[in-house]
Amino acid sequence: MGDFNLTVILDAIRRTSGGLSRVELAQIVGLSPQTISNISRRLLDQNLIVEAGKEGSGPGKPRTILRLNPGGMYALGVHLDPAVTTFVVLDLVGAVVRHSRIKTPGGNDPAAVIATIAAELAQLVEDSGVDHARIAGLGVAAPGPIDLDHGTVVDPPLLPGWDRVELRNALAKATGYSVLVDKDVTSAAVAETWAGGPSGAGSFVFMYMGTGIGCGIVLNDEVVRGTSGNAGEIGHIIVDPDGPPCDCGQRGCVKSSCIPQVLVAEAVAAGVLEGAQAGSAAEIQQSFSELCARAYAGDEGAAAILDKSAVLVARAVSVVTNTLDVERVVFGGPFWTCLSQRYLELVPPLLDANSAARLIHPIEVVGTGVGEDVGAIGAASLVLEHTLAPRAQRLLLES
Amino acid sequence: MGDFNLTVILDAIRRTSGGLSRVELAQIVGLSPQTISNISRRLLDQNLIVEAGKEGSGPGKPRTILRLNPGGMYALGVHLDPAVTTFVVLDLVGAVVRHSRIKTPGGNDPAAVIATIAAELAQLVEDSGVDHARIAGLGVAAPGPIDLDHGTVVDPPLLPGWDRVELRNALAKATGYSVLVDKDVTSAAVAETWAGGPSGAGSFVFMYMGTGIGCGIVLNDEVVRGTSGNAGEIGHIIVDPDGPPCDCGQRGCVKSSCIPQVLVAEAVAAGVLEGAQAGSAAEIQQSFSELCARAYAGDEGAAAILDKSAVLVARAVSVVTNTLDVERVVFGGPFWTCLSQRYLELVPPLLDANSAARLIHPIEVVGTGVGEDVGAIGAASLVLEHTLAPRAQRLLLES
Repeated sequence: MGDFNLTVILDAIRRTSGGLSRVELAQIVGLSPQTISNISRRLLDQNLIVEAGKEGSGPGKPRTILRLNPGGMYALGVHLDPAVTTFVVLDLVGAVVRHSRIKTPGGNDPAAVIATIAAELAQLVEDSGVDHARIAGLGVAAPGPIDLDHGTVVDPPLLPGWDRVELRNALAKATGYSVLVDKDVTSAAVAETWAGGPSGAGSFVFMYMGTGIGCGIVLNDEVVRGTSGNAGEIGHIIVDPDGPPCDCGQRGCVKSSCIPQVLVAEAVAAGVLEGAQAGSAAEIQQSFSELCARAYAGDEGAAAILDKSAVLVARAVSVVTNTLDVERVVFGGPFWTCLSQRYLELVPPLLDANSAARLIHPIEVVGTGVGEDVGAIGAASLVLEHTLAPRAQRLLLES
Repeated sequence: MGDFNLTVILDAIRRTSGGLSRVELAQIVGLSPQTISNISRRLLDQNLIVEAGKEGSGPGKPRTILRLNPGGMYALGVHLDPAVTTFVVLDLVGAVVRHSRIKTPGGNDPAAVIATIAAELAQLVEDSGVDHARIAGLGVAAPGPIDLDHGTVVDPPLLPGWDRVELRNALAKATGYSVLVDKDVTSAAVAETWAGGPSGAGSFVFMYMGTGIGCGIVLNDEVVRGTSGNAGEIGHIIVDPDGPPCDCGQRGCVKSSCIPQVLVAEAVAAGVLEGAQAGSAAEIQQSFSELCARAYAGDEGAAAILDKSAVLVARAVSVVTNTLDVERVVFGGPFWTCLSQRYLELVPPLLDANSAARLIHPIEVVGTGVGEDVGAIGAASLVLEHTLAPRAQRLLLES
C-alpha cells in the first residue's frame, strides 16, 4: 500500500514540469501533510527525487520544491525494426542520455540478431557512464504480432525467420537485465506518455508512420495493449474504394494505399521519381525523402501524392477516433518528419469533418515531440512505466 | 476506503453465479478473514447480500454461502429509441422485474416525450410493486451523439428536434430520481457486463444491431465511453468498395450497405420482397423480419442478401477487433434475433481469417443472452454500475 502512495506522489511530481512543493502535493493528491512528508523522505532517500530550491515571496516560510532526480534511475530501450535497430539509455525524466543505431543484421537468424543487440547494449551502457546499479531494466519494442504473455515475437511479416522467437527470455539471458517486450506502436504511445509532455496525457491515439502504419492507444492515461498485446493493427482499414488491391483480398487498405513503399511506387509510376530504387527498407526511406523534398520544392506531381496520402490516412484515423472518441491524435515515427508539414495542414480539417462528436469537442492533431527514436525511447519507457506508474487495480485495504 | 472494499467484495460475489463462502472470498480478493467478516456483516445489514444455505460435506464446519439479494436494490432503465421506447425495473442481480414498451411519441417535441416517459415510469414502478426506497436511480440509453458531461442528447440523426436537449436534468426534474444518461450502444455493453454472465467479462466488443449499427466497448471489465461518451461510432467504416454511396461522400460504409433499411431496399429492388414498405422504423422492422423469414424458409435471393450483410458486418467487426485486440464479440440489439442463425455461422470464420492476432488467440463470437430489451436493461445497469462497481482510480491511503 505504501508503495502505491509512493508511485502516486512520484507520478504527480513527474507530471508537473516545474516540480511541486509538499503543500501543493498534499492538495493535488489529497493526502495529509504528514503522509506527504513521510513519502517525500523515502523518495529522497532512494534518490528518486531531489529538493530543488525554494519558492515563495509572500509571507510565511518559503516552500522547498521537489523534482524528479534525472539520475535516480535509468532504463535501456531497444527498437527492433526490420531495417534499423535503435538503442537508448533513458534517465528518470525521460531524457536520452545516450543512443546508437545499427543496421538490423540480415540473414533471417534471430539468434545472431539477439547476440548483436546484447553486444551493442553492453557497449552503449559502457559509453554512457551511468551507474549499472541504477539501471532498472531493458525494454524492447518489436513489430507485431507478438505474444505479450510470453514475450514472444510471432512471425512478423517483415522479419522472416522470426517464428515464435522468445525474445524476452533470450535477451534476459544474453544481457542479464529484466526485460519487457511490447509492440512497436504501443511502445511509441508509452514514449509519448512518459516523454511527450502535455500531448502524452489523457486519451489519445499515436499514429506510428513507419515502414507500416499502426497506432498506439492511450485511454485516460492508461495504455491499451489488448488481450495479447496486439492492439493497434489498422493496416486493413479500407480508405480508398478505388485503391490498389491488398494481400488480404480487398482493395484500398491502408497497407496497400498509403504506406511509404506504395507512395514511392506511385511516384515512380507517375514519373515523379525516375529510376528510384524501392527494394530494401533503406532504399524506400531514401526514395521517400526524395519524394517529400520534391513536394516541398514545388513539384506538383509529388505534392499530389503526399496530399492524397494525407486524405487516406485521415480516413483511417477517423475510423479509430470515432470508435474510441479520443481527444487527441499524435503523429510520429521514422517517416513523420517528412510528412509533418502537409499532414498537419490537411489532416485536422478532414478529421473534424468526419468526427461523430464534432459538435461536442474538437480533436487535437499534433506531431510528437519525442523525435525519431520514439520506438526505442518507448521501449525504455516501458521499464519506467512498469516500475513507477501507479497501479490501483489490485489494491485492497485490511480493515 | 471501506466503501471500496465493500464494492470489491460485492463484485466478487456477483461474478460467481453460485455465491461464495467467506473463506472463498478471502482467497479470491486477498483480504483477511476478519476483514471479510466485517464487510459481509455490513452488506448483510444493508440487505445487499443474503446468507443462502451451507456447503461442505468433508470434515470441518460447513460454510455459509453468501449471495446477492435480488431485492436489495432496484434500478430503473429507459431506452429511448426513435421507434420504440422501452422501460424496465431491474433488480440487483440484473433480472427484469417488470418491463413495458411504448411507441416513441412523434412530433419532434422533446418536452412531450420526456413527460410521457415520466408518466410511463411512474406507472411501471407502481405496477412492479417494488419498494420505492430501494430504487437507486434511473438510467437512460439514448442515441448518439451525446454530451456525457452534461447528460445532453446532441442532434441525433433519427430524432429530429432533439438539438442539445438536457435529457438528464429534464428527467431528474420530471421523475425525482437521480438520472444517468449514456449512449445506447454503450448501455448495451454495460447490460452485458451486468446481466450477460460469462460473456460479459474481460475484454469484448458489443455489436449493437439496431436501426443503425454501433458498438459498445469493454476492456478489462471497464466500459470505454470516450472523451464525451461517444465511443463506438462505426457507421462510416468502409466495408464494400463496390457498395452504395453514403451521405458522407464515400461508398460502401456500414451505414450505407448493411443496416436493415438498406437490406430491405435491396430485397425490394431484387424482387425478393414485393410491395414492402420501408418508410417508418416499424415498417422497416416488419419488412426485415419478413426478409429473414424468407431466407430461413429457403428463398435463395433473401438468403444471399443476409449472407452478404454478414460478410460486410464481419469486415467492420474485424476493424474494431484488430484495433483493440479483444477476446470476444457479443452480438445483440433489436435486429439480432433475426440475424443470429446466419451470422453465428458466417461471422466467426471471417473474423478469424482477418484477425491480426489469429496465431496467438481465437476471437469468440456469441449472441447476447440479455435479449431484445438490452438497451433498457443496460440503462438500468448504468445505475447499478455507478452505485456498486469498484472504482480504484482515486484511491489513496493515509500512512
